[in-house]
Amino acid sequence: MSNLPSAVRIVEVGPRDGLQNQPKTLSVEQKAEFIRLLGEAGLRDVEVASFVHPQWVPQLADADALIPRLPPNPSIRYSALVPNMKGLERALKSGIKRIAVFTAASETFNRKNINMGVSESIEVFRPVVKRALQEEISVRGYISTCFVCPYEGPILKEKVSEVTRSLFDIGVDEVSIGDTIGAATPLDVEDTVGHLTTLFPASQLAMHFHDTYDMAIANVYASLRLGISVFDSSAGGIGGCPYAPGATGNVATEKLVYFFDRLKIDTGVSASRLRDAAQYISTTLKAA
Amino acid sequence: MSNLPSAVRIVEVGPRDGLQNQPKTLSVEQKAEFIRLLGEAGLRDVEVASFVHPQWVPQLADADALIPRLPPNPSIRYSALVPNMKGLERALKSGIKRIAVFTAASETFNRKNINMGVSESIEVFRPVVKRALQEEISVRGYISTCFVCPYEGPILKEKVSEVTRSLFDIGVDEVSIGDTIGAATPLDVEDTVGHLTTLFPASQLAMHFHDTYDMAIANVYASLRLGISVFDSSAGGIGGCPYAPGATGNVATEKLVYFFDRLKIDTGVSASRLRDAAQYISTTLKAA
Repeated sequence: MSNLPSAVRIVEVGPRDGLQNQPKTLSVEQKAEFIRLLGEAGLRDVEVASFVHPQWVPQLADADALIPRLPPNPSIRYSALVPNMKGLERALKSGIKRIAVFTAASETFNRKNINMGVSESIEVFRPVVKRALQEEISVRGYISTCFVCPYEGPILKEKVSEVTRSLFDIGVDEVSIGDTIGAATPLDVEDTVGHLTTLFPASQLAMHFHDTYDMAIANVYASLRLGISVFDSSAGGIGGCPYAPGATGNVATEKLVYFFDRLKIDTGVSASRLRDAAQYISTTLKAA
Repeated sequence: MSNLPSAVRIVEVGPRDGLQNQPKTLSVEQKAEFIRLLGEAGLRDVEVASFVHPQWVPQLADADALIPRLPPNPSIRYSALVPNMKGLERALKSGIKRIAVFTAASETFNRKNINMGVSESIEVFRPVVKRALQEEISVRGYISTCFVCPYEGPILKEKVSEVTRSLFDIGVDEVSIGDTIGAATPLDVEDTVGHLTTLFPASQLAMHFHDTYDMAIANVYASLRLGISVFDSSAGGIGGCPYAPGATGNVATEKLVYFFDRLKIDTGVSASRLRDAAQYISTTLKAA
């Protein structure tokens, strides 16, 4: 009776999305250890850093030092956020092989988050993505506030598909559809993501849920039914967003893995080793 | 695109299912106040007590004293658990107008919970329900462990429909399908409840989810899609089960109301007044 995928890919964003809003800044060694444990758990896509200007995200200022220290593992794809050409230059020097660019479906949110309109941000990313691809670096795109914006309210699905189109047009290979404040319901997912899957291959769309109102699992399930098989999450559910009032963390990777295990959908992740990683990061963030 | 119901009925089980496992026993006055606040919030089905022998559930031993003290409100349907004819005699004296009988889909769980096999329990309930109906008392039926039993593992849907059939046959007007340890996934719901809705009117089935692994909302959504419109929950998410190791509380009524509000499904419940009730019971249970 089910047309659910037999396997999914989890994109672990804890080291970037999870750590960027913490009051505490971890050392390079602590970040590297967290990332090592995530790899040990079986995660194969790990977003490890951001090349946003350190003034904006001091917690992630050490990206240049961190990336060369990551456990070398050809089966793990590490990635980092890149906001502009200057960020790309740093990314190239670091040796990372995948980057992500990011915009929003809400103009107001995008201005508060990256101080640009949505079209303007696409034009900034166009030469960045082009250059990255020339250097054989693959590129992911993020779209924030695809369902509800804390400033504008509900977001039209047509706006989401327009931005998705722009990102694919400039050369990203995957677009992550973000529910930045965790306000989406499965009905919203069916509506907006259902619309997207009529326009784009479901295999190139990822869902990025926050768990503010405990709706993430219901939304993941609705996404699975639409053929989505890539999901972003953070070990320990750490995270939030400084420009999205009320946003709590990403859905916890442990929660996703439990859910997929129960649905007999393969993730390649060991629940028990993942607990070690979540435990490590929770303990480390809490320690003085 | 949606065939969701436009309204649902929430059966608030906090005063019974929620309180029966608390280390602390509340006074009659505290219970009555909790129930008053639930009524003020707009809940119209409230399970307030149990006529199980006080030796088994001392927390609810005062049912006889509590029921006559409840705020009289003809639009609120109060109910109480009744395990046998002796319990029914107490229920009749108390003046309550609705009772509930309870069995399980797992033989092992039923023996641990009420020390009877499933068929045996149906035979115990048969004269109880008959007598109740003669006295113009309506009867609800509960089935525990309809998806996974902590002792037997996964439960066959055919067993669930067989027990459901038996309960309707003896005269109950609604059967509440319990995920006692919170282990069901939406796929399980589609399978088992999808099976039940081919055999019985969806309007006579209720879903009773526990939120052990945060799956309840996803399961509620799957149930809504199958036409289910009655959901059990407890304010503050209080509860558990002494005979189901690892079981945590019922799904919180606040969580259901938030979800239904977001889906624009009418519940008749005020989210803000419900918070008052949840706050009251949480504070009261925590107080020394």
